[in-house]
Parts: sequence; C-alpha cells; structure tokens
Amino acid sequence: MADAIKGNAVIGQSGGPTAVINQSLVGVIESIKKCKLIPKLLGARHGVRGIVAEDFVDLKPLGKKQLEQIAATPAAALGSTRDKANADYCERIFKVFAKNDVRYFFYIGGNDSADTARIINELAREANYELRVFHIPKTIDNDLRVTDHTPGYGSAARFVASAFLGEDRDNCSLPGIKISVVMGRNAGWLTAASSLGRQSKDDGPHLIYVPEVAFSTKQFIKDVSDIYGRLGRCLIAVSEGIADETGTPVAVSMAEKLGHRVERDSHGNVQLSGSGALGDFLSDYIKQELKQQYKTLRVRADTYGYLQRSFAGYASPVDQIEARMAGQKAVEFAMAGDIDGSVVFKRAKGAKYHIEYKRAELKDVARETKDLPSKFINKAGNNITESFKTYALPLVGDLPLSGKI
Amino acid sequence: MADAIKGNAVIGQSGGPTAVINQSLVGVIESIKKCKLIPKLLGARHGVRGIVAEDFVDLKPLGKKQLEQIAATPAAALGSTRDKANADYCERIFKVFAKNDVRYFFYIGGNDSADTARIINELAREANYELRVFHIPKTIDNDLRVTDHTPGYGSAARFVASAFLGEDRDNCSLPGIKISVVMGRNAGWLTAASSLGRQSKDDGPHLIYVPEVAFSTKQFIKDVSDIYGRLGRCLIAVSEGIADETGTPVAVSMAEKLGHRVERDSHGNVQLSGSGALGDFLSDYIKQELKQQYKTLRVRADTYGYLQRSFAGYASPVDQIEARMAGQKAVEFAMAGDIDGSVVFKRAKGAKYHIEYKRAELKDVARETKDLPSKFINKAGNNITESFKTYALPLVGDLPLSGKI
Repeated sequence: MADAIKGNAVIGQSGGPTAVINQSLVGVIESIKKCKLIPKLLGARHGVRGIVAEDFVDLKPLGKKQLEQIAATPAAALGSTRDKANADYCERIFKVFAKNDVRYFFYIGGNDSADTARIINELAREANYELRVFHIPKTIDNDLRVTDHTPGYGSAARFVASAFLGEDRDNCSLPGIKISVVMGRNAGWLTAASSLGRQSKDDGPHLIYVPEVAFSTKQFIKDVSDIYGRLGRCLIAVSEGIADETGTPVAVSMAEKLGHRVERDSHGNVQLSGSGALGDFLSDYIKQELKQQYKTLRVRADTYGYLQRSFAGYASPVDQIEARMAGQKAVEFAMAGDIDGSVVFKRAKGAKYHIEYKRAELKDVARETKDLPSKFINKAGNNITESFKTYALPLVGDLPLSGKI
Repeated sequence: MADAIKGNAVIGQSGGPTAVINQSLVGVIESIKKCKLIPKLLGARHGVRGIVAEDFVDLKPLGKKQLEQIAATPAAALGSTRDKANADYCERIFKVFAKNDVRYFFYIGGNDSADTARIINELAREANYELRVFHIPKTIDNDLRVTDHTPGYGSAARFVASAFLGEDRDNCSLPGIKISVVMGRNAGWLTAASSLGRQSKDDGPHLIYVPEVAFSTKQFIKDVSDIYGRLGRCLIAVSEGIADETGTPVAVSMAEKLGHRVERDSHGNVQLSGSGALGDFLSDYIKQELKQQYKTLRVRADTYGYLQRSFAGYASPVDQIEARMAGQKAVEFAMAGDIDGSVVFKRAKGAKYHIEYKRAELKDVARETKDLPSKFINKAGNNITESFKTYALPLVGDLPLSGKI
C-alpha cells in the first residue's frame, strides 16, 4: 500500500442538498487543514461545473468559527449542481486536475456522484496518474446501496416525523381527511419516517403509501373510507413517487390528465418536487368519490417540498455527527494509501446503536438504488410496520412527545 | 368590585390551532387546580360544539407531568371547532352553563371566538346570571387588535423564518426561481416573518408579497425578472391571501380560471389553505412569461401549509412562556372580580423586550382584524422593511445562523 502522496485536493458538492451536507464538507476541510502534504484544498463552486470552469475557492484558510457556522447550515455551501458528467465531461475534469496537481478528489453526493467519481478514477488510472478519489454519500432518500443509511436521511426523517406528529394532533383537533406528500422518487424511506412519531393506537398517519407498492386509486379510496368511517378522521402520508402497476408515476398520469407539461431534469428524471399537484389531485379525487357517502367532507392536501431537505435549525444530532465523521473518514482513508472508494456506515450488532465507518468500492455504490425492504411494509401495502422504528429511530434523535387529553 | 364567586368553570379551544394553544389551556388548568372556589373545570370537546352537546372532560384531576406534555404538544388537545355561534347557539350554550352551575368561561381562540364570548356574556348579563367570561387570544395570523401580538404567532413566525433561511441556502446551492406560499388570509404578519432569517445583503427572500398590497401579475413578473437578471436566482415569499386591486384573491381568480370549485367554510371564508394551487399557478405564470428571455428556467413552488401551525418540537420559547401566562392571567383576572374581557399583551417601552399582561374589553377584540402597518412594507410594495425585525425578532427566539463560503 502506497503512502500518502503530496499534491492538492479538490472537493465538490452535488445533487439535491441536505441539512448536513456541509457537515461532511467541514469534516474534510478540518482534516486537511492539519495535513502538510496537501498544500491547497480547492472548493469547486457548483460541483463538477466549477471544476471544469476552474471556479475554485481556497478552503484551508477558513477559521474554526466560520467552519462551525457553515457545518450547521443546510444546503451546499459550495453550491451544488445537477450536471451529470459523461466521459467527455470527466476528461475535462481530469485535465484540470492534472494541470493543478490535484491528487485528492472528494465528491459529496448521491449515486450519480459516485458514478462520476468512478469514471474520473478510471481515467486517472489509464493515464497512470495517481489520484485518490473518495465519494462521500449524502441523500435524504436513503437509497444508496451497501451502507446502513446515508448522511442527510436522519435529518429529513426527523423533519417528516415531527411534521406528522403535529399534523396528527391538528387532524384530531379539526377532524377531516388530510394528505401530506413526502419526497422520495423511487424509494419510500423518507415517507416511512412519517410513522416514527406515532405513540399510541389510532395515532396517524393511518395510511402510508410508498413507491415500492403499486398504487391503485380504487384501493386508495377504499382504504381512506374505511379509516374515516371508523375514526372520523384520516391522516395519509404519500410518497411523491407513487406509481401505478404499469410503473407510471401517479404525479405524471395526473399531469397528463390535466394537460400539463411534464418537466424532466438533465438525468431524464421526471420533475416531481416543487409542485402541489399530486396532493391536490388526490384530494379532489377523494372529494369526488366520497361525496355521496359523507355529506360534509373536509379534505386537505399539503406537499412538504424542499423544507424536508433545507429546513434550518432542526437537523438530527446523530446525523450531524455522522455526516461530519464521513468527511473525516474519507480524508483518513485517502491518506492511508492509494485506494479509492465511498465511505459507508455499518451498524454494529447488538441493542445499542453504534456505527462503524468503512470503505466500499465506488462501483458498488454507483448508479443502482436501494428500495425500502418488504419487511418494513405491511401486508396490505398501505402502512409501515413497527419494526421500521427499530431501524430508523436511532437516526433521528429524540422526538417530541404527543400529549393528549 | 365583587369577589370571586363559587361555581364551576368551562374551557374550550376554537379555530385553527397553533403550536402553543395548549400552553394557554395548561395555564388555565394549573391555576384553577389551586382554586377551591371552583369545584370542577370542564374541558369542552371541540369548543362550543362540545358545550351544547355537554361533551365535557374533567380537567382538575390531570397531573403535572401529563399537563407539561400536553402544553408542549401542538394543536388543540381538547379538540377545536370552526362553528361560529350565532344568537341561538349562544342561547343553548348559556342554558348548559346555568344547568351545570358554570360561573367561569374561558375561550381560547381568535376574533370570532372573542365575539362568541361577548354574546354569551351579554346573555348572562340580561339573565342576571353572574358569569365571568375570558377570551384567551391565539392565532398564527397575529391580526387581533389591541394586543402587541398574539400567542401562536411567534412559533409560526419562527417556523417560517427558519424555513426561508434554509430555502435561501438551498436556492443559492441550486439557483433558480422559488416561490413559497405562506399562510395569512387577510394580514401579512406571517409572510413578513420570511424576512427574519436574512443575515446579509442578497440573502432571500428577495421579494415578499402580502395581502395589504394589491397584487399585480404584471408587476410581479417585472420584479422577478429584475432580481433573477441581477442575482441568477430569486426566492419569493407569497401570502396565500394576496388579492388584486378589486380585492379578489389571486387564489380565487386562479381557481375560477382553472374551473375549480371554490370552497367556503361556515364563516363564509374562502378556503385558501390545504392546496398547492396558488404556488403552482404563479410558477406556471413565470415560466410562461419569462421563457423567451431565459432559455433554461428552473421554477419551483412550495406551499408551507399546516406545518406552519402544527409542526412539533420547534415552537418559540418566548411564545410558549407567554401563551402559558395568558392562560394564568385569564384566571387571575376572572377571580379578581366580576369582570370579563380578553387577555392582551402590552410591550413595555425601552430597548429590552418585556411584556405586560392586560385586560381588554371583548368588544374591542372581537370581529375586526389588524393589518400589517405600512411602515413594515417597502415603498414598492414587494418587500418587508428592516424595522420589522425590531418588532418581530424578540417573539421568535434565537434563529440559526447562515454560514457561507
């Protein structure tokens, strides 16, 4: 195993930000500040976009107080990007690295970012240029493979859990049918977190729909009617990514039905967030289907939107610590030898929650995603099991109690 | 002035809940627990609705631990109601009071609730029945007259301020145009709180639209285009209640344009919350108007919805204390003599924030609302002045800092 190599480092942030993505950034900065072998740590503005434009900011001079302030602030302090670097883009990145004597590259992002890191790493290997590439995971979606969970998930899950805890009390105060739409394109991890604040029988959400289960509008109406008939109220968590049995997102079939244009990002993904359309559609549908049965029906829909990833001042304390450690560990791994990889979390066995930080191969993290396993979904496919709490509660920190009379 | 009178007490909660409405409830309960002249404190389930149905819960037996847990929980623990009690309804309430030897009535609610309290009080006077009626204000809208601010506002304002602080960082990470819709039917107090997290020049929200200023879609597009042209991004706070110069809410003109049915509640108010329609309309409108000028335009809209009043675990510490005190003071005033009224806050003059608790006449609080004064709105009518911070910052508690690179 080779020793640490002398040269500069580049760090970038990519994809949808989280509440703790800057913790990982600061973890890298504070580790490299101590490191004489790395003369400069260059922060790339807006990820790969900043690299090719050589839009860098020198990060080693930042002081401790400013770093702590940055670490506690949501969203990407260096700026983020949705650019997906193809082979040609990666070639340009590699040229900038060679020109600036960059020997270390840290990229904080989701699975697309892990893939970018993987391609650049291969280019360096082909050119016989020693480059140590580390991907530092972040995503509120929690859908990366290999790792127990991702930095960013705990804070978003904490927001969603507290939101539903309060919504449930609100729905009990003024009974009706309430739908709240949660982020999560392909995986139901974040929507499942709506269950974490439930503290006693009949606490909501009473129904939870995740993308892993094919959504049937007919069954949905039956589910809602059953709960509403029994409790006189119904709180529903819906993932923005729910799709019918053909795999068509409900948000898309609705948009097409209403004659709206469906937006796609540069990765070809359909735009689901930043609109209240899915919630409004489901709300209108319930009113239409149940108006015969119930004379007065109060149906409301909210879409939590970007608050889930960006709300300031309510991050999970565990998530903050782990995200910082992920950045520190990436530097530690990169300095230890000519290895590359992604930092992953391994949960130790036993009753007490404990995380070990490991290295995974970039190819094992890149591209593919990880669904919510079926053990966390009830048989009817419309709720989350209690066993999910054992997995997720340690990640979100203490939740408020739900006081009742 | 008459001394305290022996008899039972009734307490109810009404209208849209807040994060601290249970603090006021617990303030009343803990004060009356000490009071031997009041054998029973009856909690009415769902406000006036519970009174006429004699759906009461005995509150004096509740223990300290449970009370603290209730106090910290958002939404109305007794249940709330949208029922507006007319003369006939009030007559029924009064009969239930007389039957149950009720001599004290505490009603936690907005200006409609103050009016209900006023009518019941007059019925008692006409019948020569000694009844001491106290209204305890609550509303996230902060639009009650006479008082410096209302319990519930500080917590909702804290949520909105933190939300926009994070949104601003998110918008800086992935630049684009972002609209976030804030609650507030007639008054812009809560939307104005979007300005409280701004910490340096060019921090968003860059535009703030409140119902007090007639909304022009044409001027709106010009404002957005100016900011976006200058900064390459634009974060916009919009009150759900914005209306054009004829007084028609933009949410209503949009709903009618799209052929949707406009819902009204039992007070005749148009349903504005619980739908993402206004944000989506404004977002589509920007895309349509600016697509010629900007090749790629990322426009997103979120509607904060019920989270603003119900989010658990992030209430303002000041608001919590004051709401509790409002409940305690209502009991203190009612026990002091045969007086009725509403508990109001008076801010002491001087640099240090200090609140005095006073009694106001029910008629002075009932029905009419209080707009955001023009001194807090900039000349162009599209932003909030810095002087608003002097008024509102003491109400929300410490806000997170915005760390930048």
